[in-house]
Amino acid sequence: MTKTRVEAFSDGVIAIIITIMVLEMKVPHEASWEALEKLWPVFLSYVVSFMMLGIYWGNHHHLVHSIKEVNGSVMWANLHLLFWLSLIPFASGWMGENHFEPKTLAVYALLLNFCGVAYYILLKVIQSCNRNNETFRIVLEKQSKKGMLSMVLYTLAIPAAFLHAAIAGSIIIIVAILWLIPDRNIEKATKKEH
Amino acid sequence: MTKTRVEAFSDGVIAIIITIMVLEMKVPHEASWEALEKLWPVFLSYVVSFMMLGIYWGNHHHLVHSIKEVNGSVMWANLHLLFWLSLIPFASGWMGENHFEPKTLAVYALLLNFCGVAYYILLKVIQSCNRNNETFRIVLEKQSKKGMLSMVLYTLAIPAAFLHAAIAGSIIIIVAILWLIPDRNIEKATKKEH
Amino acid sequence: MTKTRVEAFSDGVIAIIITIMVLEMKVPHEASWEALEKLWPVFLSYVVSFMMLGIYWGNHHHLVHSIKEVNGSVMWANLHLLFWLSLIPFASGWMGENHFEPKTLAVYALLLNFCGVAYYILLKVIQSCNRNNETFRIVLEKQSKKGMLSMVLYTLAIPAAFLHAAIAGSIIIIVAILWLIPDRNIEKATKKEH
Amino acid sequence: MTKTRVEAFSDGVIAIIITIMVLEMKVPHEASWEALEKLWPVFLSYVVSFMMLGIYWGNHHHLVHSIKEVNGSVMWANLHLLFWLSLIPFASGWMGENHFEPKTLAVYALLLNFCGVAYYILLKVIQSCNRNNETFRIVLEKQSKKGMLSMVLYTLAIPAAFLHAAIAGSIIIIVAILWLIPDRNIEKATKKEH
Repeated sequence: MTKTRVEAFSDGVIAIIITIMVLEMKVPHEASWEALEKLWPVFLSYVVSFMMLGIYWGNHHHLVHSIKEVNGSVMWANLHLLFWLSLIPFASGWMGENHFEPKTLAVYALLLNFCGVAYYILLKVIQSCNRNNETFRIVLEKQSKKGMLSMVLYTLAIPAAFLHAAIAGSIIIIVAILWLIPDRNIEKATKKEH
Repeated sequence: MTKTRVEAFSDGVIAIIITIMVLEMKVPHEASWEALEKLWPVFLSYVVSFMMLGIYWGNHHHLVHSIKEVNGSVMWANLHLLFWLSLIPFASGWMGENHFEPKTLAVYALLLNFCGVAYYILLKVIQSCNRNNETFRIVLEKQSKKGMLSMVLYTLAIPAAFLHAAIAGSIIIIVAILWLIPDRNIEKATKKEH
Repeated sequence: MTKTRVEAFSDGVIAIIITIMVLEMKVPHEASWEALEKLWPVFLSYVVSFMMLGIYWGNHHHLVHSIKEVNGSVMWANLHLLFWLSLIPFASGWMGENHFEPKTLAVYALLLNFCGVAYYILLKVIQSCNRNNETFRIVLEKQSKKGMLSMVLYTLAIPAAFLHAAIAGSIIIIVAILWLIPDRNIEKATKKEH
Repeated sequence: MTKTRVEAFSDGVIAIIITIMVLEMKVPHEASWEALEKLWPVFLSYVVSFMMLGIYWGNHHHLVHSIKEVNGSVMWANLHLLFWLSLIPFASGWMGENHFEPKTLAVYALLLNFCGVAYYILLKVIQSCNRNNETFRIVLEKQSKKGMLSMVLYTLAIPAAFLHAAIAGSIIIIVAILWLIPDRNIEKATKKEH
């Protein structure tokens, strides 16, 4: 029961974050291709942020699916993660509106880093109250490794943003791809369990 | 369990998309009939987009209801569909604000086309991991046929928008009606299953 | 299963409608009591609309709770209701921003009337596919009677708005109170069933 | 069933309230640190309000989790609580935009007080229809005590805001910390029940 409500609340918050981001793409008052063209940086940052939030939703789904119990600490660690995720529309909008200027890209990378840390904390809090579960152990191991690597890459993206926007952007995209590759081990473990 | 969460997340996102669209109808500062009258194109495009999203919700409902299993690929194909659907408020608002100018109508038809393709991909991805289910087979067959026809019509609507707004508009309405006609075969199959 | 998803989607849409209404109350840029005072009509219309939507949620809850089956027609009748409800933030905002001017009040009463009709249609559609259920019969009878009376009163409120805002306002409040009085018959019937 | 829907609706509303608050943090048009720095009061009030809403969600969760039955009065008491919570984004935005001016802080403390009273009413309404449940008795006792103390502190924060913003702010933070300390008694009781 408790677990279901944590899932439902997280789904709700992530669904809203992902959807209100589109409000940053202000409807142009003219019906010209130029007006539409001007929106490309906002659109691009929307695409990237949508993907990022989609990845978090997917991982969160796999993680919570594999556990049995939810306690007060898990609820707070989960809210902490949702807090950082809720700032993505802001950072994404700032970056898009200012055509990926170094500072905005650096802040975006920093925010993604905070989200990563918050996810890692959630992982550890869940670990401390859910032992002896094979599926969870595999999810934990895989997500921990990928999470660590992501944080290293995001940290590199912060100074890289001041060298060239394209470098920082590429690093962020690489992290996304890293997570998009489906994890056969997790899927196999989940299947075996059923 | 997994299936429920995909449904809940999709419901959440579609519910939010459908509702934030109403924010495009800016409250007029004067209490005159003229101020209200000026809103008719925005209102009309709201009605059409509401209907479109309602149809997607209904189809999505029938589709996911008929399947047993959800895996990583289904989750991503579903997110891909939600991404295109999330752009409907923007395209709808642009079209309404510019009184159905050819370019805006063409972009709207193009977006509906992308949504259609994304739905078709979801259909195919689901098909590859859910075999041997009679209800699903019927849903798949019907939705594939209608989906194909919709895409052909949407593609026709794009150049038609530059001839006359009314032609493109009519095509889009025809596609909506096509989907609004309840599918007796699907309902019968669903009923039989219970 | 199907019923659950119709409930979840309706809950989502009503929850969002009720919450985005608060966005019409624009944050004043000054920290003065005068700036806050100016917001009272927007606040008052927010309170009334919140109550109205709360009543619809409650009724919808009782109605869908008492039925067994949901088919395509119910889904569409439900979406039709949600469409009219989704316009409440707009009508409410217009009314508040223009200090309950006759025209805005008349439009608000008209919209509530449309919502009432849409609810009545949903009631009838559900009736045609759910027979022989005692709880549902009682809910139906009570809600039909109250619904009829509401529609008569809302229709009276439209011309009344042009006589004096207070008369139309009072009628709308009376309808709200009519629904707020808990229905002992429905609660008893629901209890007996368990 | 009924209980689930009250939970789902409350989750939805709280999730939306928590997320639309971020829209008050308007994306700056310049990519400078100064532009970002100017947002700190809005950001700070966002953090505090996020925490407050998170606490309400957690408490609501524990409260509703411990009960068996939900009736009409509970539904209305719950809606009443959601109404006051829905005003938090407004009060929070006003406070942030005006750099914690005494009046805005006082209004914020007053609103939190109203939320507290509404929660207390919900507690009492639930108590009158759910007897003889050990877990619920413990939740009730603990939350009543903390609730009383919170209301006293919030009431003190109102005049304190006019002395110095920092005093009122500290009181509000103290109340938050009071609730953030996990309640071992509730968790133990919940665990025992399973």
